[in-house]
Amino acid sequence: MTLPRLRLRKRDQQRLRDGHLWVYSNEIDTDVTPLKSISGSLVHLEDYRGHFLATASFNAHALICARVLSAHPVTVLDTGFFQDRLTAALRLRTAAFELPYYRLVYGEADQLVGVIIDRFKDTVVVQLSTQAMEDARAALVAALRSVLGDSLQIVFKNDGKGRRIEGLTDYVETLVAPGQMANPVLEVIENGVRFETSVDGQKTGWFYDHRAGRHWLNHWVRQSAAQGQPLSVLDLFSYIGGWGVQAAAHGAALVTCIDASAQACEQVNATAARLGLAQVSAIQADIFHWLKQPVTQQYDVVVLDPPALIQKRKDLRVGRQAYFTLNEAAIQRVKPGGLLISASCSSHLERSELILILNQIARRQKKQLQLVHEAHPAADQPRLLTLPETDYLKCLFLRVSVVE
Amino acid sequence: MTLPRLRLRKRDQQRLRDGHLWVYSNEIDTDVTPLKSISGSLVHLEDYRGHFLATASFNAHALICARVLSAHPVTVLDTGFFQDRLTAALRLRTAAFELPYYRLVYGEADQLVGVIIDRFKDTVVVQLSTQAMEDARAALVAALRSVLGDSLQIVFKNDGKGRRIEGLTDYVETLVAPGQMANPVLEVIENGVRFETSVDGQKTGWFYDHRAGRHWLNHWVRQSAAQGQPLSVLDLFSYIGGWGVQAAAHGAALVTCIDASAQACEQVNATAARLGLAQVSAIQADIFHWLKQPVTQQYDVVVLDPPALIQKRKDLRVGRQAYFTLNEAAIQRVKPGGLLISASCSSHLERSELILILNQIARRQKKQLQLVHEAHPAADQPRLLTLPETDYLKCLFLRVSVVE
Repeated sequence: MTLPRLRLRKRDQQRLRDGHLWVYSNEIDTDVTPLKSISGSLVHLEDYRGHFLATASFNAHALICARVLSAHPVTVLDTGFFQDRLTAALRLRTAAFELPYYRLVYGEADQLVGVIIDRFKDTVVVQLSTQAMEDARAALVAALRSVLGDSLQIVFKNDGKGRRIEGLTDYVETLVAPGQMANPVLEVIENGVRFETSVDGQKTGWFYDHRAGRHWLNHWVRQSAAQGQPLSVLDLFSYIGGWGVQAAAHGAALVTCIDASAQACEQVNATAARLGLAQVSAIQADIFHWLKQPVTQQYDVVVLDPPALIQKRKDLRVGRQAYFTLNEAAIQRVKPGGLLISASCSSHLERSELILILNQIARRQKKQLQLVHEAHPAADQPRLLTLPETDYLKCLFLRVSVVE
Repeated sequence: MTLPRLRLRKRDQQRLRDGHLWVYSNEIDTDVTPLKSISGSLVHLEDYRGHFLATASFNAHALICARVLSAHPVTVLDTGFFQDRLTAALRLRTAAFELPYYRLVYGEADQLVGVIIDRFKDTVVVQLSTQAMEDARAALVAALRSVLGDSLQIVFKNDGKGRRIEGLTDYVETLVAPGQMANPVLEVIENGVRFETSVDGQKTGWFYDHRAGRHWLNHWVRQSAAQGQPLSVLDLFSYIGGWGVQAAAHGAALVTCIDASAQACEQVNATAARLGLAQVSAIQADIFHWLKQPVTQQYDVVVLDPPALIQKRKDLRVGRQAYFTLNEAAIQRVKPGGLLISASCSSHLERSELILILNQIARRQKKQLQLVHEAHPAADQPRLLTLPETDYLKCLFLRVSVVE
């Protein structure tokens, strides 16, 4: 069995040789291999001389028309292909974590472009974002069951923005093992604290990418509590309380979570009640609006973890202003000597750009910012050095003090 | 009392207004304030119109002739000045750490440019690198005793490269409290493991900047040991075993430390013997030479933490090649699926440049590098967003596997 070939232009093949994994449609030598001539969702990429480069998923209608899946000439994404990939991915996660709550597959970084899988013990939530993976869904399901056990519940949360770009329709579907009932509750135990979420929430239901940052904050909070000075925490864009509720469980004296979603606030309150954390409260509010109020209270820690405010490059200017506005208001709410945790998951906002924004605010408010920590996703979301797009998350821990 | 004034040229004052803290001698309006006319080691910086900008330390003979000490018009570095700074610095460290082993003062980041202080419980090792701080030594000593107690032993390890640039002579001197004997042993407890070092060692005797990275490795090692698969570790440029001995204490099955210093190797062995860690051995060797040998053994973890191989910008080309050579040989010694911990403390080697080097090696060896963690100095060595020079340390945790 042979696959359609896709030939790169000479000047465009170097990026791939250097380890990048995406091919844009204008990089194809369409005289030799016209995009429209190709059927199916898998291709073999070749260099301008016709030598094999890599196996890639393919979509004639997407700007990124091909994404590398293998350095070898694979011809079909069968159960064995996925078993190998999943076994390697699982080996890394079990080496890093005690409990089965983690991102099991992080697309390109696990050599499975188009697949995101978050694991919640006996349930995995899968997000597919390419036609090739959609076509290979049955093989992926079989491989997941063979690697993680037949009783695994598999939820497809296929409604991401990536799908629309690829021309895929949205759907959510739960596959239960024979004889089992669907369980809509996803249990998460992170840094010793148990949460419940569901696939009705944001993305897969949980943001594992902040696990390590929250772990650091938990330690910071615990250390102060042990010294008899328990901290107050304001958690902005709290979602279901990943930062704030964990901080409370680790000894924060007062935690205020704010989120625009009523459902998220309810879950903050439910988790706090279940864990007996009376110091936690949730406020349903639009954060931009809420922060426009006069400052009546300052906190030892302010967590600012907004959703991606810059979805597309053309939104950079407006988005940059939004990050400025949020960080400016957040810093005003940090006690002298307290911490601002400023995060951004917008890949279009470079780390250096976020730092420029913070420096401008600091200068205006005559404050000094000491970067006491910087967090990255844990080992369940590895970054590829050759693919900067895997490095989207910024998370800066800044001690705010007055310039002396 | 008034201080000499130092006027900045109009076009050169913006960097300072933006929060940088250094002034180069060619940025001075020497028509108004000739460098040679200034006596003393403190000045008031002013803008091109003569308005006060900041108090700075001064040295007419240094390329960086002034370094900002305060946003206020300070006129003397007296005991009170140092008490305020030390108290603020101590507050951050006690908020972050349980035990009194940390970098207490990190120069500019603690608003004390020219001063580095590492604390080893009842002993502090001080490095002064400016004339201003040398002149104010007695006040600093008095403030240290008032903040940390009268029984504090204070060691001046004044032999850094920075001193020669400032035209200061080298000396090492130990000040003991009245009635006490000098104690040449410095005890360090880091991540639960007790070391002994001395000021005869490198720098202050210990490198606290890798504390957080070692903590991560300890967890990684412990996790594998708990799963019945204890790891092997090769610690290159081990010094007295900060990485390797800690990994052994946390469950590594086999640890080989290599360093060029016989004294460092002796200390590795002494610490391992004291802690009952028979799995640790030390080899005295030139690492570049040692790595030229054929690969006879691979390790689960290879730590590559060389000294700064690029001391000056003009050494960039040669230094870059040295990092290439070391990383290339180190990666060959990592088992498939194992970890390379690649560090660089050369401020002239950008993070992006180190990544380029690693990508070149990976491509040549047909390996994939997953960045599973990235460490930064802990909260005892905060970085200033406005002063990139405080951000010199790179420490990448890379899982090495074969490209599939």
